[in-house]
Amino acid sequence: MSAPKKIAIIGSGNWGSAIGKIIGKNAAQLDQFETQVNMWVFEEMVDGRKLTEIINNDHENVKYLPGHKLPENIVAIPDVVEACMSADIHVWVLPHQFVRGVCQKLKGNIKPDAIALSLIKGLDESKTGVDLISNVINKELGVEVNVLMGANLAKEVANGHFCETTIGCRNEANGQMLKEMVQADNFRVVVVEDATTVEICGALKNIVATGAGFVDGLGMGDNTKAAVIRLGLMEMVKFTETFYQSLQPGGSKNPQGSQTSTFLESCGIADLVTTCYGGRNRRVAEAFVTSGKTIDELEQEMLNGQKIQGPPTAKEVYHLLTEKKCEDQFPLFVAIHKICYEGMPVKDFIGCLKNHPEHM
Amino acid sequence: MSAPKKIAIIGSGNWGSAIGKIIGKNAAQLDQFETQVNMWVFEEMVDGRKLTEIINNDHENVKYLPGHKLPENIVAIPDVVEACMSADIHVWVLPHQFVRGVCQKLKGNIKPDAIALSLIKGLDESKTGVDLISNVINKELGVEVNVLMGANLAKEVANGHFCETTIGCRNEANGQMLKEMVQADNFRVVVVEDATTVEICGALKNIVATGAGFVDGLGMGDNTKAAVIRLGLMEMVKFTETFYQSLQPGGSKNPQGSQTSTFLESCGIADLVTTCYGGRNRRVAEAFVTSGKTIDELEQEMLNGQKIQGPPTAKEVYHLLTEKKCEDQFPLFVAIHKICYEGMPVKDFIGCLKNHPEHM
Repeated sequence: MSAPKKIAIIGSGNWGSAIGKIIGKNAAQLDQFETQVNMWVFEEMVDGRKLTEIINNDHENVKYLPGHKLPENIVAIPDVVEACMSADIHVWVLPHQFVRGVCQKLKGNIKPDAIALSLIKGLDESKTGVDLISNVINKELGVEVNVLMGANLAKEVANGHFCETTIGCRNEANGQMLKEMVQADNFRVVVVEDATTVEICGALKNIVATGAGFVDGLGMGDNTKAAVIRLGLMEMVKFTETFYQSLQPGGSKNPQGSQTSTFLESCGIADLVTTCYGGRNRRVAEAFVTSGKTIDELEQEMLNGQKIQGPPTAKEVYHLLTEKKCEDQFPLFVAIHKICYEGMPVKDFIGCLKNHPEHM
Repeated sequence: MSAPKKIAIIGSGNWGSAIGKIIGKNAAQLDQFETQVNMWVFEEMVDGRKLTEIINNDHENVKYLPGHKLPENIVAIPDVVEACMSADIHVWVLPHQFVRGVCQKLKGNIKPDAIALSLIKGLDESKTGVDLISNVINKELGVEVNVLMGANLAKEVANGHFCETTIGCRNEANGQMLKEMVQADNFRVVVVEDATTVEICGALKNIVATGAGFVDGLGMGDNTKAAVIRLGLMEMVKFTETFYQSLQPGGSKNPQGSQTSTFLESCGIADLVTTCYGGRNRRVAEAFVTSGKTIDELEQEMLNGQKIQGPPTAKEVYHLLTEKKCEDQFPLFVAIHKICYEGMPVKDFIGCLKNHPEHM
C-alpha cells in the first residue's frame, strides 16, 4: 500500500468550495488520502478579517459559499506554492484566465510525480493558438492532467442535491483514485478514459447555449430549440473528431480516439441541456434578441459586468475552423460567431441551419 | 424510371394533418409520387357537415388542425380500404390503440409490395406480449414498416417552424424515397438504417419525462433533472441493447445492431429533452407530486380525460424486464412503474438512482 496522497485545491470560489466540502469529507475518511487538504485562497479582506483566517477558524467561505460549513481538515493557505508544494494531487478550480499565472508560480516548486484534476471550463487562447486548459497545465508543469466536467451547478452540489459528473482520466488507476476522492452519496461519478472529449464538451457547450438563447429570443418554439441543441451537439462531435489528435496532450495518445458514448455522459448531453435551458449564456443571448442591446451592455446590466463564455469561445473556435478551412461543416458555430462579432442579423440564424451537413 | 408511387395517409388528427401539408406539397411537385394523396379520415359531423366533405371542399381539417390549408391534392376518404388499396406507401399516423383494428380491415386489401412509414409512438400490449407498433403492422399485413420519429410538435410543424426528424428505414433506397416524400425547407430529415432503435426512442421517452416531472415536483433543481434525463437515456440505450433482437421484425435483421449514434438523432436526445421540459407527461407527473392526487384524477382535470403515455409504457416495460429478470439494471424505469402503480412514495425516487449501474 502506497503512502496516503496529499491533496491541494487550487481555487476557492463557489465551485472550489463546493467540491472542497466533498473532498474534505472523503480525505478525512479514506486511508488513501492524507487528512489535511490544502486550499489555495486568494487573500482578501472580508469585514476587516482575512478570508483565510475566516475559513480556518469558522470553517466557512463567507464570501463565495456562505451558509455552508467546510470540513475542518480543509486548510486555507494564501500562498499557492506553499499550498501545492507537498501535494500529490492538484485540483484546479479557478477562472481560466488565472491558469497561466498560477502555473508560472508553481513551475519547479511541485512534486514531479504529482497529478492534476482540472474542473476548469473554457479554452485558452494565446500567441501560439487555441488550446485546452488541461494542455496548458500539462505543458507548463509537465504533470498528467485529468478533468472533471458535468451538470454541476456549485450551489446545488453544495446543497447535496443528487447529481452526476464525469471524470475523463488518462489511465484507469488514476481515474479510480480520483473517483474515490470526489464521489459522494449524492454526487455520482462516471469515469471514462477519453479526457479530451470530456474537456471539449465543457468548453463548447456555452456556444450552443448562446444559440439556444437566440432561438428563445426569436420565439421559435420547442422543436426549433431542440433542433438547435442537437445540431450544436453534432458540431461538438464533429469538432472533437476533427481536432482530437491535435488537442491530445503530448505522450498520452488515446489510441481509440473520441468515443460517441462520451457525449452521452454527464459532461455531454446532461451539461449541455442544463446550460441550454437554464444558464446565463442562454439568458443573455435571449435578451440580445429581444432588447437589441449589445452583449457588452447586457453583461453590464444583467451580470454586473461578468462575462458570458459563449461568444468568446465561438470566436476561438472560429479561428480554429478557418485555419483548418472547415467552416462549412460547422454552420451553427460559425453563425453564432458572426452574429456576436460580425453584425450578422440574428434572424438569419435558422436559415444557416437548413442545409446543415447533418441533413445531407 | 419506375411508376410514380401512390401515397395514402392513414389518420387525420393534428399530426396526420400537419405531415399531410408537407406530403401533399411534395407529391404535387415531385415526379416519383402520384399527385393525389389519399387521406383516411374517420368520418364525423362538424357543424352539420361531414369532415371529409369539409376537407375536400374547403381544404382544411377544421376539427384537428384549424387555421391551416391542406394542399388540394390531399383527398379525404372515409373508407380506409378505399383509401389504401391502390397505395404503394402507407403513412400510419393514428393513436396506437386503433392500429390492430385498421390492420384487420386492410388485410388482403392492399398491394402486396406496399411499404409503410409509421409515425406512431408507443408500445403495443396484447395477449402475446409487448411489441413495437411497426411489428404489429408488419405481422398483420406482411409489409415492410419504416418509422419516423423526432422532436415534432404537430402545431409547430404545421406553422413551418424549423425542426428536425429521423427516419429509421429497413433499406437505404426506401429510406431515401421516404425522405424525399416528407422533407421540407423547415422540416429536415436524417435517415438511419436502425429503425428499431428509432422506434424504441419514441416509445420510451415518455417514461423518462414522467421521471423528469417527479423531479420538478420535488423541487430538486436543474442538476438532478439533468441526471434523471441522462440516466433515463442510458436506460433507453440499455433497453435497446437488451431487447433489440427480439424486437426486430422477422426477416429484416439489422446485422449491426443498435447504434449509439442513433440516440444522438432527433428521435433520441432531441425528442427526449423537449418532452422532459415541455410535454404533458412531465406536467401531469409534476402535479402528481405537488397535488397528491392520482394520475387518473389529474388526467381528468388537466387533460379532459386524455391519457398520458408514460405510466402505461412504464408498466409494459416493467413486464418485459421482469420476464427477462433484469429489473436491477433499470432502476429508473422500475421506480417510475412502482410510483405510478404500486404505491411507492415519490420521495424515494432519487434514492433508487444512487447506486445506478451507470455509476459502478
